[in-house]
Amino acid sequence: MRFHTRKWIKPEDLNPNGTLFGGKLLAWIDEEAALYSIIQLENQKTVTKYMSEIDFKSSAQQGDIVEIGIEVVKFGNASLTLKCEVRNKMTRKTIIIVDKIIMVSLDQDGNSKPHGKTKVEFVKDRLNDDEY
Amino acid sequence: MRFHTRKWIKPEDLNPNGTLFGGKLLAWIDEEAALYSIIQLENQKTVTKYMSEIDFKSSAQQGDIVEIGIEVVKFGNASLTLKCEVRNKMTRKTIIIVDKIIMVSLDQDGNSKPHGKTKVEFVKDRLNDDEY
Amino acid sequence: MRFHTRKWIKPEDLNPNGTLFGGKLLAWIDEEAALYSIIQLENQKTVTKYMSEIDFKSSAQQGDIVEIGIEVVKFGNASLTLKCEVRNKMTRKTIIIVDKIIMVSLDQDGNSKPHGKTKVEFVKDRLNDDEY
Amino acid sequence: MRFHTRKWIKPEDLNPNGTLFGGKLLAWIDEEAALYSIIQLENQKTVTKYMSEIDFKSSAQQGDIVEIGIEVVKFGNASLTLKCEVRNKMTRKTIIIVDKIIMVSLDQDGNSKPHGKTKVEFVKDRLNDDEY
Amino acid sequence: MRFHTRKWIKPEDLNPNGTLFGGKLLAWIDEEAALYSIIQLENQKTVTKYMSEIDFKSSAQQGDIVEIGIEVVKFGNASLTLKCEVRNKMTRKTIIIVDKIIMVSLDQDGNSKPHGKTKVEFVKDRLNDDEY
Amino acid sequence: MRFHTRKWIKPEDLNPNGTLFGGKLLAWIDEEAALYSIIQLENQKTVTKYMSEIDFKSSAQQGDIVEIGIEVVKFGNASLTLKCEVRNKMTRKTIIIVDKIIMVSLDQDGNSKPHGKTKVEFVKDRLNDDEY
Repeated sequence: MRFHTRKWIKPEDLNPNGTLFGGKLLAWIDEEAALYSIIQLENQKTVTKYMSEIDFKSSAQQGDIVEIGIEVVKFGNASLTLKCEVRNKMTRKTIIIVDKIIMVSLDQDGNSKPHGKTKVEFVKDRLNDDEY
Repeated sequence: MRFHTRKWIKPEDLNPNGTLFGGKLLAWIDEEAALYSIIQLENQKTVTKYMSEIDFKSSAQQGDIVEIGIEVVKFGNASLTLKCEVRNKMTRKTIIIVDKIIMVSLDQDGNSKPHGKTKVEFVKDRLNDDEY
Repeated sequence: MRFHTRKWIKPEDLNPNGTLFGGKLLAWIDEEAALYSIIQLENQKTVTKYMSEIDFKSSAQQGDIVEIGIEVVKFGNASLTLKCEVRNKMTRKTIIIVDKIIMVSLDQDGNSKPHGKTKVEFVKDRLNDDEY
Repeated sequence: MRFHTRKWIKPEDLNPNGTLFGGKLLAWIDEEAALYSIIQLENQKTVTKYMSEIDFKSSAQQGDIVEIGIEVVKFGNASLTLKCEVRNKMTRKTIIIVDKIIMVSLDQDGNSKPHGKTKVEFVKDRLNDDEY
Repeated sequence: MRFHTRKWIKPEDLNPNGTLFGGKLLAWIDEEAALYSIIQLENQKTVTKYMSEIDFKSSAQQGDIVEIGIEVVKFGNASLTLKCEVRNKMTRKTIIIVDKIIMVSLDQDGNSKPHGKTKVEFVKDRLNDDEY
Repeated sequence: MRFHTRKWIKPEDLNPNGTLFGGKLLAWIDEEAALYSIIQLENQKTVTKYMSEIDFKSSAQQGDIVEIGIEVVKFGNASLTLKCEVRNKMTRKTIIIVDKIIMVSLDQDGNSKPHGKTKVEFVKDRLNDDEY
């Protein structure tokens, strides 16, 4: 799994008990799944359809740095299934894992639309750009 | 199921496709589950431990009003299991359902702590207050 | 008065003295009045025209749960007058009362528009839906 | 009346009808009244106690610039009464006026505390600083 | 330099170390530069093109009040060069200075567009309004 | 340069002209520089001291995905100098470059504190963890 996006936990991210607000964490995961899918499917109109069960394994504190990892589970016809893990960047301790997030590619009318993709692509290859 | 909290969907709640951002919706659900549990368990240190699978059934638009419903599935020893539904207030169309959200009551050290509750209570009864 | 929407006071809702920021509270009241009016008047283009004097009776702390109550004072021709109270959910202590909030129904050009309503309606009745 | 603080109306400040959200406007007014009072009373623990009736005279659009004016109505023993107007910076059209906002100076225990001030002071005079 | 906009530092403005988040401060500066330019150039489509080096001279704490000052360095053909200082309102201690912020006036297609302005104007003069 | 953090541009990130608000972009850069430095210097109390000039090369639209890259320019005694680039993820078009961001490591009293680091380290090596 590749971990890209990182977040620095600030006061605005806390619940009233002073730990990372779970709802904020879920919002970060949803955004990451959406943008990852848009990159892969090359369709901005890609939406979250399903998330499998979510186990909050540990929490995080103000000042912690977390990183969000995504990997592809399966390319469907109009869908893309992802796995997501959020962990503490400094200790690698897992905070949350979501095994299946199903994203669906839509057309302009909001109907599902085949995306024609079957494997992970890198933007650099699309651009014929050999610099990482 | 009782529906209490209502939200008016504003531009700040939208994803770039102009519909309700799923991550915002999940954050609203998590907040509602937390505050409902705090009221029932009378312990401010109550945290989200688990959410069962989430099916995004329909979306919502800017200007829509949604309402968030919660009902108790089970009182555990230190836990409380809830069901949550978010629906469009005007059409009653379901937006999302989460069948099981497990909340856990903690003590000051962050260990699970029996809450001693076995059934839904109303604040008015605790307060001997017969006005609704 | 019926109390629906609930809020869990998080760090992002506080003023620098560590109590609930009054401006946030006023924003919550305005949103609740707007969405309540939109439900009653069945017109999304309903705006706040007037609030009567506001007495901040008590404050609230991080972690407190507040609930926002609305009741109808009067149906006018193009207007709807509401009363709003915000109170602490656990203690029922009043935080703020606004006796009169006048909402006005507008047409597409922003002119006031008679709404034809004379009494509180429930969405379930409009939908012929006998489940609460 | 002196107008200091200015705001540029961004998408995050709008209600679902696409005009300035009244609740955001009230939050801006409350912040301005608080900071003005803290400057005058030289006490960070100054809170909003009362606002007189609020008439929403006109609205504002995305991209508009508004300015917030404050003037002192009266110095009380532990209180300071302010008047506030928000207007469109480019057209001077009034958006909202609040005739009386009563701010109260508190001590560490949250009780009202005489502030000893009787007239508007300028920070430059306190600092013996003749540069404006 | 004239200081207009004031901010009251709230928990949502802090970094995890409990001082004013530098990123928030830069966002405030960018907003102030934009709105000042829009007022001067009478063109809402005015964007930030360049900021000279930024020296964070001191920090600020929760509850502090800061004020943001802007002065014109130069009127270009399609540009306006500003200087900005943010300082603590109560102590006049400088928090940050940006010597040059270059704003550019654009036409509807996003190309630079001469603004025809050569000196600072006051809105009151444009409006033939002699009240300050 | 390695690009990690990604952002999906939502309505809340826009200026009133409907493009990415420059202030938001600067806040994202400041957060990324801070968290990168905290990871490298292993000191949570690391603050932004200086940014070199900033050239806004292109803008970004709602729905675009941007990625933020950081590389180390120099390890000082108590400082770390970074270079930052933000680019459009799909087109690799540069949005903004900041050549020098100087971060400083502080002790508990806020004085600069030597960090003892001389080269980029990877968390996996610190943890003796050979999985990427």
